[in-house]
Amino acid sequence: MNPSESTAIVIAGIPVVDMSMYHRIRFLVGDPAAWIEWGPEGSRRSTLIVRDIEMDRARVDARADEVTCPGECEPSGGLSGDRGIATAQATAEFLVRRGIDRVIVHRDLPMLFADCFRERGVEIVCDRDLGIIDRRAKDEEEIGHLRTAQAATESAMRLACETIGRAGVDPDGRLLHDGEVLTSEIVRSIIDIHLIRKGFSSRPSIVAGGPMGADCHEMGSGPLRTGEPVIVDIFPQDKKTRYNGDCTRTVVHGDIPPELAAMHAALVEARAASEQATRAGITGQRVHEAGIARIRAHGYGVGLPPDGEATYCGMIHGTGHGIGLDVHEAPLLDFKGPELVVGDAITIEPGLYDARVGGMRIEDMVIVTADGCENLNRLPYGLDWS
Amino acid sequence: MNPSESTAIVIAGIPVVDMSMYHRIRFLVGDPAAWIEWGPEGSRRSTLIVRDIEMDRARVDARADEVTCPGECEPSGGLSGDRGIATAQATAEFLVRRGIDRVIVHRDLPMLFADCFRERGVEIVCDRDLGIIDRRAKDEEEIGHLRTAQAATESAMRLACETIGRAGVDPDGRLLHDGEVLTSEIVRSIIDIHLIRKGFSSRPSIVAGGPMGADCHEMGSGPLRTGEPVIVDIFPQDKKTRYNGDCTRTVVHGDIPPELAAMHAALVEARAASEQATRAGITGQRVHEAGIARIRAHGYGVGLPPDGEATYCGMIHGTGHGIGLDVHEAPLLDFKGPELVVGDAITIEPGLYDARVGGMRIEDMVIVTADGCENLNRLPYGLDWS
Repeated sequence: MNPSESTAIVIAGIPVVDMSMYHRIRFLVGDPAAWIEWGPEGSRRSTLIVRDIEMDRARVDARADEVTCPGECEPSGGLSGDRGIATAQATAEFLVRRGIDRVIVHRDLPMLFADCFRERGVEIVCDRDLGIIDRRAKDEEEIGHLRTAQAATESAMRLACETIGRAGVDPDGRLLHDGEVLTSEIVRSIIDIHLIRKGFSSRPSIVAGGPMGADCHEMGSGPLRTGEPVIVDIFPQDKKTRYNGDCTRTVVHGDIPPELAAMHAALVEARAASEQATRAGITGQRVHEAGIARIRAHGYGVGLPPDGEATYCGMIHGTGHGIGLDVHEAPLLDFKGPELVVGDAITIEPGLYDARVGGMRIEDMVIVTADGCENLNRLPYGLDWS
Repeated sequence: MNPSESTAIVIAGIPVVDMSMYHRIRFLVGDPAAWIEWGPEGSRRSTLIVRDIEMDRARVDARADEVTCPGECEPSGGLSGDRGIATAQATAEFLVRRGIDRVIVHRDLPMLFADCFRERGVEIVCDRDLGIIDRRAKDEEEIGHLRTAQAATESAMRLACETIGRAGVDPDGRLLHDGEVLTSEIVRSIIDIHLIRKGFSSRPSIVAGGPMGADCHEMGSGPLRTGEPVIVDIFPQDKKTRYNGDCTRTVVHGDIPPELAAMHAALVEARAASEQATRAGITGQRVHEAGIARIRAHGYGVGLPPDGEATYCGMIHGTGHGIGLDVHEAPLLDFKGPELVVGDAITIEPGLYDARVGGMRIEDMVIVTADGCENLNRLPYGLDWS
């Protein structure tokens, strides 16, 4: 869409929550804010509306040509005492004062802003790609942040996998660590403390053992056992840069049962096939198809289990997702997944799930290039971490 | 607003991000979801649309009468391969199939949902109180969660304040801890590790010493010094319940300069006056006015400094804010702040800021009752933690 002088682009929301907003202004604040691009073609400029006490900090740190606050854009009827409403009212007043009667907004714009714009006669056009497309192709700085995040994630992963793989075992088959029964919760806390020391936030990691891991979003709880697959999926955020890591490995303590070795062999092939298929110009669907072809070749299913089938083992999710300031962002590597572009950061994470034995998944992060991709991971894929 | 049979109420978004959505369904998931209340008066029911792989978990855990997924609400033109768009398209299709032509939505509804509703001819009404008012009066369970969160916050606060108050000092006046210069970063990391062990998330705490603390949202960095105020503001989230704590204390290492003692005396009086004014039926503005009257009585300013005045010392922010699933939620204790209700959880946090010496703030959390309030804090207010 090509904005004219009476059309502005507005991205608004809470920058610590809405990463499209943060990506645009690169300024972290927990109160509502609005970024407006406006003016005649050739001399468009950007104005940031933030809370009054944030203006000085924003003038130094935020990416915007000028900074103002709701108090400086007060409509004749006054501003609400509710800070959320006041920011939206002030943004509407800012537009009206400049003769702007049409705004292009991003898909995550809070409805409250749209409501205040409409109240003032400003037409709203939702550009579903705004804040999505512009975050896809990562620049060198962003790739550096992702590299740092994935390295920290891998160091936590190694620690978690070795803690499980090298644990003792009691007569009931439960794992032992430092004289205690090793649980999902203990492994999660070991991961958390390791990451916090590295300056990363501690989103709850998945540490799901045995049949519990068959639900691919189950966090896991209770004692871990020998001979069962334990999915470890860690996706922390760098508190400084806000970019995310995301890595999954599966560990089996002790002897590896043949059905687990067979599932693993299929996943390793599927992951390699998807990575090999990845390059700019290929669709996310093609990357997914390259992987699931290998899953099917090994005799496993693709998609959710047919109703009532208790003996199903299959890949119940897509192959991966974009990653950056959000852990999950565009593009999706699944059926209907869009064409990849140079600089897309994506995860490749085939998984197999069986209600009888549990789940298994391996996940790397790669950066799409013109003729292939760069894999940011260094860890091995094996089940044995003893 | 009184919905009729052709009107639905829709709350949609990402439950781990949008706490109004989480509050409604009490089900944590990182993908977009929609909660719809619909049907004839007297037999209204709620339907939750979630990703297919989350349906089983949602049927057990989520607060909704029935659970479905985008694939079961596919419009004739098909669903987008973009998961965000697909969820919004499916929600619109769900409405259209049931003859619903008008929806009442919350203020944080992502614009994308509104865009998909409008595309299908569904009228949208933004109820600015929906998801705000219904989260204010906390029930006994929620107050229990806040009590737990504030106790954990206070234990981290005691640790941080004592670490600063009991530190050594080098010949340049810099604090020493375990043989190292004590910095904001080290104190922050001590707080983080303490909270993570208690099952709390580690949002970056404010540890701002000296003139740095004069910006009330500055996080603080570098060496801490004797004789200077250090603001410590900790606001962690309980990972299990998602409810937040929020507490601030100010520490001065060593002898307390008279100008800091004078600022502190004003804050202690202001805090007590605001707490004393708090009860259901009183406005947030009255609670704020009760505190700033004491600030003014001590000769300090209220509001932002007049342009160019470098010798200003004043209270540059409101007295406090509501707290619950979000650290900042309704009501605001400031000019235009609304009437308080029984069960409102609010912070009372007067502060004084002076570009020459720094900032000082003390903050408690209280629960509003019919004839007063219950203070959830136990820590003393003093500057001396030696």
